Amino acid sequence: MFSEEKVNKLVAEISDNYASEELFLVKDGSGMPNRDCIKHIIFEIRRIMFPGYFDSENLSNTLPQYFVGHNIIRLHKELACQIKAALVQQASEENRLSDIEEKAEQIATEFFMSLSEIQRKLIKDVQAAFDGDPAAKTKHEIIFCYPGLFAIFVYRLAHELYKRKVPFIPRIMSEYAHSHTGIDINPGAQIGEYFFIDHGTGVVIGETTIIGNNVKIYQGVTLGALSTRSGQLLRDVKRHPTIEDDVTIYSSASILGGKTVIGKGSVIGGNAFITESVAPGTRVSVKNPELSFTDKNNKNKDKEIFD
Amino acid sequence: MFSEEKVNKLVAEISDNYASEELFLVKDGSGMPNRDCIKHIIFEIRRIMFPGYFDSENLSNTLPQYFVGHNIIRLHKELACQIKAALVQQASEENRLSDIEEKAEQIATEFFMSLSEIQRKLIKDVQAAFDGDPAAKTKHEIIFCYPGLFAIFVYRLAHELYKRKVPFIPRIMSEYAHSHTGIDINPGAQIGEYFFIDHGTGVVIGETTIIGNNVKIYQGVTLGALSTRSGQLLRDVKRHPTIEDDVTIYSSASILGGKTVIGKGSVIGGNAFITESVAPGTRVSVKNPELSFTDKNNKNKDKEIFD
Amino acid sequence: MFSEEKVNKLVAEISDNYASEELFLVKDGSGMPNRDCIKHIIFEIRRIMFPGYFDSENLSNTLPQYFVGHNIIRLHKELACQIKAALVQQASEENRLSDIEEKAEQIATEFFMSLSEIQRKLIKDVQAAFDGDPAAKTKHEIIFCYPGLFAIFVYRLAHELYKRKVPFIPRIMSEYAHSHTGIDINPGAQIGEYFFIDHGTGVVIGETTIIGNNVKIYQGVTLGALSTRSGQLLRDVKRHPTIEDDVTIYSSASILGGKTVIGKGSVIGGNAFITESVAPGTRVSVKNPELSFTDKNNKNKDKEIFD
Amino acid sequence: MFSEEKVNKLVAEISDNYASEELFLVKDGSGMPNRDCIKHIIFEIRRIMFPGYFDSENLSNTLPQYFVGHNIIRLHKELACQIKAALVQQASEENRLSDIEEKAEQIATEFFMSLSEIQRKLIKDVQAAFDGDPAAKTKHEIIFCYPGLFAIFVYRLAHELYKRKVPFIPRIMSEYAHSHTGIDINPGAQIGEYFFIDHGTGVVIGETTIIGNNVKIYQGVTLGALSTRSGQLLRDVKRHPTIEDDVTIYSSASILGGKTVIGKGSVIGGNAFITESVAPGTRVSVKNPELSFTDKNNKNKDKEIFD
Amino acid sequence: MFSEEKVNKLVAEISDNYASEELFLVKDGSGMPNRDCIKHIIFEIRRIMFPGYFDSENLSNTLPQYFVGHNIIRLHKELACQIKAALVQQASEENRLSDIEEKAEQIATEFFMSLSEIQRKLIKDVQAAFDGDPAAKTKHEIIFCYPGLFAIFVYRLAHELYKRKVPFIPRIMSEYAHSHTGIDINPGAQIGEYFFIDHGTGVVIGETTIIGNNVKIYQGVTLGALSTRSGQLLRDVKRHPTIEDDVTIYSSASILGGKTVIGKGSVIGGNAFITESVAPGTRVSVKNPELSFTDKNNKNKDKEIFD
Amino acid sequence: MFSEEKVNKLVAEISDNYASEELFLVKDGSGMPNRDCIKHIIFEIRRIMFPGYFDSENLSNTLPQYFVGHNIIRLHKELACQIKAALVQQASEENRLSDIEEKAEQIATEFFMSLSEIQRKLIKDVQAAFDGDPAAKTKHEIIFCYPGLFAIFVYRLAHELYKRKVPFIPRIMSEYAHSHTGIDINPGAQIGEYFFIDHGTGVVIGETTIIGNNVKIYQGVTLGALSTRSGQLLRDVKRHPTIEDDVTIYSSASILGGKTVIGKGSVIGGNAFITESVAPGTRVSVKNPELSFTDKNNKNKDKEIFD
Repeated sequence: MFSEEKVNKLVAEISDNYASEELFLVKDGSGMPNRDCIKHIIFEIRRIMFPGYFDSENLSNTLPQYFVGHNIIRLHKELACQIKAALVQQASEENRLSDIEEKAEQIATEFFMSLSEIQRKLIKDVQAAFDGDPAAKTKHEIIFCYPGLFAIFVYRLAHELYKRKVPFIPRIMSEYAHSHTGIDINPGAQIGEYFFIDHGTGVVIGETTIIGNNVKIYQGVTLGALSTRSGQLLRDVKRHPTIEDDVTIYSSASILGGKTVIGKGSVIGGNAFITESVAPGTRVSVKNPELSFTDKNNKNKDKEIFD
Repeated sequence: MFSEEKVNKLVAEISDNYASEELFLVKDGSGMPNRDCIKHIIFEIRRIMFPGYFDSENLSNTLPQYFVGHNIIRLHKELACQIKAALVQQASEENRLSDIEEKAEQIATEFFMSLSEIQRKLIKDVQAAFDGDPAAKTKHEIIFCYPGLFAIFVYRLAHELYKRKVPFIPRIMSEYAHSHTGIDINPGAQIGEYFFIDHGTGVVIGETTIIGNNVKIYQGVTLGALSTRSGQLLRDVKRHPTIEDDVTIYSSASILGGKTVIGKGSVIGGNAFITESVAPGTRVSVKNPELSFTDKNNKNKDKEIFD
Repeated sequence: MFSEEKVNKLVAEISDNYASEELFLVKDGSGMPNRDCIKHIIFEIRRIMFPGYFDSENLSNTLPQYFVGHNIIRLHKELACQIKAALVQQASEENRLSDIEEKAEQIATEFFMSLSEIQRKLIKDVQAAFDGDPAAKTKHEIIFCYPGLFAIFVYRLAHELYKRKVPFIPRIMSEYAHSHTGIDINPGAQIGEYFFIDHGTGVVIGETTIIGNNVKIYQGVTLGALSTRSGQLLRDVKRHPTIEDDVTIYSSASILGGKTVIGKGSVIGGNAFITESVAPGTRVSVKNPELSFTDKNNKNKDKEIFD
Repeated sequence: MFSEEKVNKLVAEISDNYASEELFLVKDGSGMPNRDCIKHIIFEIRRIMFPGYFDSENLSNTLPQYFVGHNIIRLHKELACQIKAALVQQASEENRLSDIEEKAEQIATEFFMSLSEIQRKLIKDVQAAFDGDPAAKTKHEIIFCYPGLFAIFVYRLAHELYKRKVPFIPRIMSEYAHSHTGIDINPGAQIGEYFFIDHGTGVVIGETTIIGNNVKIYQGVTLGALSTRSGQLLRDVKRHPTIEDDVTIYSSASILGGKTVIGKGSVIGGNAFITESVAPGTRVSVKNPELSFTDKNNKNKDKEIFD
Repeated sequence: MFSEEKVNKLVAEISDNYASEELFLVKDGSGMPNRDCIKHIIFEIRRIMFPGYFDSENLSNTLPQYFVGHNIIRLHKELACQIKAALVQQASEENRLSDIEEKAEQIATEFFMSLSEIQRKLIKDVQAAFDGDPAAKTKHEIIFCYPGLFAIFVYRLAHELYKRKVPFIPRIMSEYAHSHTGIDINPGAQIGEYFFIDHGTGVVIGETTIIGNNVKIYQGVTLGALSTRSGQLLRDVKRHPTIEDDVTIYSSASILGGKTVIGKGSVIGGNAFITESVAPGTRVSVKNPELSFTDKNNKNKDKEIFD
Repeated sequence: MFSEEKVNKLVAEISDNYASEELFLVKDGSGMPNRDCIKHIIFEIRRIMFPGYFDSENLSNTLPQYFVGHNIIRLHKELACQIKAALVQQASEENRLSDIEEKAEQIATEFFMSLSEIQRKLIKDVQAAFDGDPAAKTKHEIIFCYPGLFAIFVYRLAHELYKRKVPFIPRIMSEYAHSHTGIDINPGAQIGEYFFIDHGTGVVIGETTIIGNNVKIYQGVTLGALSTRSGQLLRDVKRHPTIEDDVTIYSSASILGGKTVIGKGSVIGGNAFITESVAPGTRVSVKNPELSFTDKNNKNKDKEIFD
C-alpha cells in the first residue's frame, strides 16, 4: 500500500521542505562535529584523569609516561579535527581553511595544556564529595560511580572550550553529561573548587552563573534566570545568580536572577524559591511550610486531589 | 559451591514461577517488538527530518530525492514489521495474520505520509527554541544538541502511532526519549505548534493533556492528574490539564486535573501548585514565598534541618 | 603547535599528579570491577525474570529449564568474577586470594538462590503498577517499558549484594538505573512489596530509608536526610525516613530525617515538605498554596520575575 | 562531476538491467538464507562438539546438560529458520507455506538428532590427524588449530543437509570452509571415518566422490571429473573417483573420473595424474621424474625459462 | 621483568629503525587508503550488481531507482575519498591538492559510469558458470556461493581502476579476493566475457595476461611469467601468456611466458607445463604420465618416498 | 517436532560423549588461549613494525617513542596472559601457578626484546620482494598488500615463540596466516634473510625445513616430508629439506625429504618433483615435458578426458 505514487509524493514534499528552509543548509562538503567522537574524547580523557578506574587493564602503573604521552598525542589530533569541523560550520566565506586549521590546532593545544590543572581540581572535587556524603564508602566509589563528579568533570572540560569560543562542542559535551546524569551545567558557568552535587537529577546551572569554592548543591536545584521573555536580546547579559564560597543549597531550591547573590557561608533550605540576594552567613528555610493534616476518612473538598 | 543440587533447585523454582504466572505468556512463536529496531527507526527518521546534522557525510545535498526515497522505503518496511509484531501480541485468536499484516502496512504508510507535515512543525519548534533561549547560539545548535527538541520530535512521531492505536511502540518511543532527556511526554498528549521545553529534566506531560500553540515550559513542570486512586477505572477519562495558546510555565510548577484550564497568554511562576483553572492573561506567582532568614550562628530549632 | 616540549611538559605534570595522589593507587595487577559486565548481568537476569520480553526469539517457552539452567550457571560465573574484583580492591594485605575467591563464590551463590523470591516480588510490583496507573494498557507494557519497574528491579538485585557488603557493585548497579531512569534508589534502602514509582524522574531514596508494602510514589519525591553537614561521621546512622504500608506520596514532595515516620495509609500531597512524623491515616496537603493572580498587563513589582 | 544527469543515466541503466534479467528475481518478500547466521550456526555447533576449546569460559564442565540443551534448542530454531528461507526460494507456487515450515522443522530436527553420531566421527578424525602428523604436539592442538579438521567438521554438517536436499545452505557451509582453509569438499561427497587432510590448501573433492575409512590426503590433491564439457547434462552422473579404505594420496596428485577406483591400501605419490583405476595395494609414483640438471652458468635454450 | 630499562631500550631501537628507513615515511598528515572502507565498497557494489542476494531485506524490488540512486551517490563519495588518499601518497610536491581531488572525483565518476556494463558482463559470467558446472543447482547458487564468480567480480572492478592508474586500491581489491578465494588475478590482466573459474584455489593470472571470451579454467592453473630474475627491469614488459577465445585449461596446468599464445578453441590438460605457443584447436595432454605401479609389499628403492 | 523427548535424548548422548572422551578434558577453570586476542596482537605488532600503514591516523610521526612505548607495554601484558593460558593447559599438577606466570612473563619479555631485530629483517624481506617482482609498483604496495610478506611477518613472530617452546600460540599464529594467505609455514622452520614468496597460495614449508638467505619461492611449492607413515615416531626428526642461499624455486615444485639439500644458487623449475639433493649452482627443469598435441576434431581415446 506504500505505492509508487505515495512514495514519490512524499519524496517531493520532503525535498521541497529541504529546498525552502535555510535550516537544512549545513555547509556542503563538511559535516557537523561528530558526537560519538566527542564522547570518545571525554571517556579517554577520563582514563587519563583517573588512571586504572576505567581500563580493563591498569596500564598506567607501568611507566605511566608512555600511557599519558601516547594518549594525549592521539586525543589532541582527534579534538583538533572536531574543533576544525565546528569552526568551519561557523566560518564566513572570507575565512581561509588554513587559518581555521591553525586556530583549531592552537585551541586543542591550549585545552590539553590545561589538563593537569583540571586534574588537580578534580581531586579536590572528589574530596568534597567524600566529606559531604556519609553514604560514600570510599573515594574510589565516588570516582567510579558518582554522577555528580562525572557532570563536574565534563563541565570542567567543556568550559575550557567555551572560554575559547568553540561552537557546538561545549554544548555537545554538556548535553551528553546532562543526558547521562540529569545534571544540566551550561559550559559558560564559572565554578570554583571543592564543588559537590549530590544525587543531582534535575539540577540546572545557567550560562552566566558564578559559583565560588566549597559549594554543595542537591538534586532539583535551579540556578536560573528570572525571565527569558526577551529572548535573544538577553544574550551575553548576566541572567543567572552568583553563589559565594561555602554555600550549601538543599534539594529543589530555586535561585533566580542575574543580580541575585547568595552570600558566603549561607545555607539555603530545600524547596526555597529565591529571587533576591541573601546576606553572607544566612540560613534560609521555607518558613512554616503550611500543611493541612486531615483524617483520610474525613471527606472534604481536598477529596478531589487526594482521593 | 553453586552445586548441582542448588542449580537444579533454582531452575525448578523459576520454571514454576513461569508456569504459574500469566505474565510470562508472551505469545509463542512471535516476539515482542524490538526496542533496538525502534530506536534505529527514530534515529533514521531524524536524519531525514534534519539532513546533514547526524550523518558523517552530508549525503542529502546531492540529489536529495534518492536519499529520501531510499530511506523511507527501507524504514517503512522496518516499521511495518514492528507494528505487526505489536499487533500480534494484542490480537485475539480469531484475528487472521493476513489482516494484521495489512493493517500494519496501512498504519506504517499513514505514518510515513504524515512525515512532511511533522517536519514543518519541527521547523517551527526550532524557531520557538531559538526565540525563547538567549543561551542558544544558533538554530543549528538547537537541532544538534537540545534535549527538549529531541523529546518533542519523538513525541510527534509517537503520537501518530498512538492515534492509530498501535500498542507498545508509542510507549517504547516515549520512554526512550524520557530516558535520554528526563522529559516524559505521554504519546497521547495533544500538543500544538511552536512548542519549547527548556532544560527539561523532570517534565511530565500526562496522557490526556491538551497544549495549544506557542507554549513554553521549563524543567520540573508536571502537567498531571489530581489522583489516580481509582486506577484502571480512570482509563480514557480526561485526567490532565488543558494549556491554551501562548502560555509560559516556569520551572517545577505543577498543574493538575482534567478540568484545569490555563487560559490563553497566562504565565505560571516557578514552583506554583495549581489545581484549578486560571483565566486568560493571568500571571500566577508563588506569593510571599515565606522564608525564614536567620543568622547561621544563631542556634534555633531549625538547627536539626540545616546544621 | 603541540610541540615536543609541550607534550613532554604535560606528560611530566600528569605523571607527577599520579605520583603524589593516593587516589590513583588502584591496586596493581587487579582492575576495578567492569561496568559493562555488570550491565550485562543486569540485562541477562532481566531476561530470566521476564522471559520472552527482551529476547529476539522467545526461547523460554520450549523446555524452559535449559534456558534457565544454562543462563544462571553462566551468569553466576560472571558475577562471582566481578565480586572477586571488588573484594580484592578492598582487601588488606593479610587477606589470602583463595579466601577472597571463596567468599565471592559464596556471595554469588546466595545472590542467585534469592532470584526466584525476587521474581515473585517483581510480579507483585507489576500488579501494583497496573492497578496504580490508568495510562497502563497492559501488564506487558509495564514490564516492557516502565522506568519505575526497571529501577525497582535493579534495586532488588543491588540490595542483595549490599546486604552482603559487596563493595562498588551495588552502587554501579543503582547508578546505572539512576542514569537510565532518573530514579536514584540507594541499594541500602529497605523496600517492601507492591511498590510503584510513576514517571520517576528525580526520585531520590536514601540509604537508610525504610519503605513498607503497597507504597506508591511519584516523580521528584525525595526521601532524604535533614542535613549532611557532619559528613562521614553520620555513616551508618539512620538519616532517612520510614514510610509505613499503604502510603501514597505525590510528585515533588520531600520527606526528610531519620526519625520521620509517615504512618500507615497516609497520603502526602504534591510539593509537601515534611521534616516531622505524620500519624497513620493522615492526608497532608500544601495548604492554601498562596498564589498571586494578577493581570499580565498590570505592571507591578513582579515584573522582573515574569516579564 | 558526478552530475545529476550522470546519476540519473546510471540509475536508469541499472534499473533496466534489473528489469530484463530473470536472475534478479529473488522472490519478493522473502530473502535468501543469511550467510552470517549460517556461519554462526557452524561456530556454535563447534562449541558443542568440542566443549571448552572455543569458549572464553569453559561452561560445559559444570552441569553440561544445561549448556547442551540450551544451545541445541536455540540453534535448532535458527537452523529451521534458515532452511525455511532456502526452501521458499526453491518452492513453486503451489507449495503452501505451512508445509514448507513443517518440512524445515523436520529437517532441522533430523539434523540435530545426527549430531552425537557426527561428534563420535570427529573424535576419530582427530585421532587420525594425531597419528598421521608428527608435527602435531597434542590432540588439543589439532582440534584448536588444524584447518583440515575444520574442513571435515563443516563437511560432515553440510552433508547431512545435502542428503536431505536442502538448497543453498550446504554449499554456503562448504564454501565458507573453502574460503577459510583452501579445502573444497563438495557437500555431496561420501566420506568414511578416520579421515585426515594435512595442510590442505588446494584440495578439491568433487560432488560424487566416495571415500572409504582411514584415508589420508595432502595439499593440492584433486579428486575430480575428467571433463565437464557436457555441463548440466552430467548432473547426477557419477563424475568423481572412488577411494577405498586405507589409501594415502600425497600432495598435488590428481585422480579423475567417475569410474576410477583407487583400490584398498594403495599409496598415490605426489604429482601423480591418474585417470584409470588402480588395483588394491598398489604403490603409484611418478616414474623417472625426468629432470634436466644443468650448470646455471652454461647458457642453453632453457635460458628463456629460468634466466 | 619487562623492566623500565628494557622498555626504554626497545623503544629507542625501534625509534631508530623508524628514523633510518625511508620505508616508514608514509606521508605525514595523510593516511594510506583504508582497507576496510575498500572492502565495504566492494560488498556494497555487489548488492547493487546482484540485488536481493546479500540484503537481509530485498529492498530493490520496490522502486529500485531509489535503492540504486542512493547507493551509487553514497559509494561514489567513499570511493573518491579513497582514490584521493591513494593519489596523495603517490603525488610529488608540485601537485596541488585541488587537482588531486578533481582527478579522484573524475576517476570515481568514470568508474561508476562503467558499472552497468560490468553488470551485463557478470550476468554472462554467471551463465558461463552454470553451463560449465554440473554441480551447480541454479544460477542463484552461483551468484550466492561461487568463489570463482566473486574473484571475477572483484577483478572487473579492480581492472577499471588499474586502467586509470590508481595506485594501491586495485591491488587491495585483488588481494582481498585472493585471500577470500585463493584466486589471484592481477588487476592488470585483460579478460573477456563468459569467463569461468571452477574451484579456483591456487589460480594465478599475471599482470600482462590477455584472455579472450568463453574461457574456462580450473584450480591451480598458473598463467605466469617465465622468469622474473630481471626484476623491476621487466616492468611493463608483456611477461604473461595470451589465451584466445573458447579455451579450457584443466587443473594445475602452467602456461608461462609473454610470447606464449594458446590458440582459439584449444584444450589444455591437467598438470600440463607449457612455455611455447599452441596452435588453435589443439588438445594438449600430459602424454604417458609415466607412473610406476608396484605392489606395496614389494620393497624397492621407492620405499623411501612412500613408506 | 523437536520434542522434549528428542531434546532430552540428544542432551544425554552428547553429555555421554563428553564423559567418555579424554579429548574434552580442557582443564577446568582455565580456558584455552584466546584466538581473537592472538590475532589482535599480530595486527598491533604489525602497526609497530610498519608505522603509518595500518593506522587510520599516522600517529607514529609525532614523537614515536610514546606510540611505541605505550603499545609494547600494553601488548606485552596481553601476550604474557595468553602464554600463561597456553602453559597452564600443558602443565602437570606439580607446576606452581606462580612459576608458570613468571615463565610466561619472561618469554613475553624475550619475545618483545627481539622485535627490533625482526623489524630489521622485515625491511630486507620488503626489499627482496621489490627486487623480485616487476608487478610491484612501490615498496609501500608490498607492505600494504602482499600476502607473502604477511605470511613471513607472522612466521617471524611465531618462530620466536616456537623456539621458546610455547604451546598452541605459534600454531594459532601460523594457521591464521595460512587461512589468510594460503601459505602454510610451520613455525618451527628456520628461514634466513631477504626471503620472498610470490603469490603464495598452496606453499607448504614443513617444521624442520632450513632456508638460507636470499631465497625466492612461488605459489604451490612444497618443502615437505617424504613419508609420514611412521606418524608420531618421526617427531623431532629432520623430515624436511634444506635450501641454501640464493635459491629460486618456481611454482608447484615439490622438494621432499630431510636429507635433501638444494645447493647454493640453484634454480628449481616449475612442477619439478625432487627427492634427492641438488649440487650448488644447478638449474633443474622438468625435461621434455612430454605433451601430446592433437587436433580436437580428431576423435581418439583421449576423448574421455578432454571431450
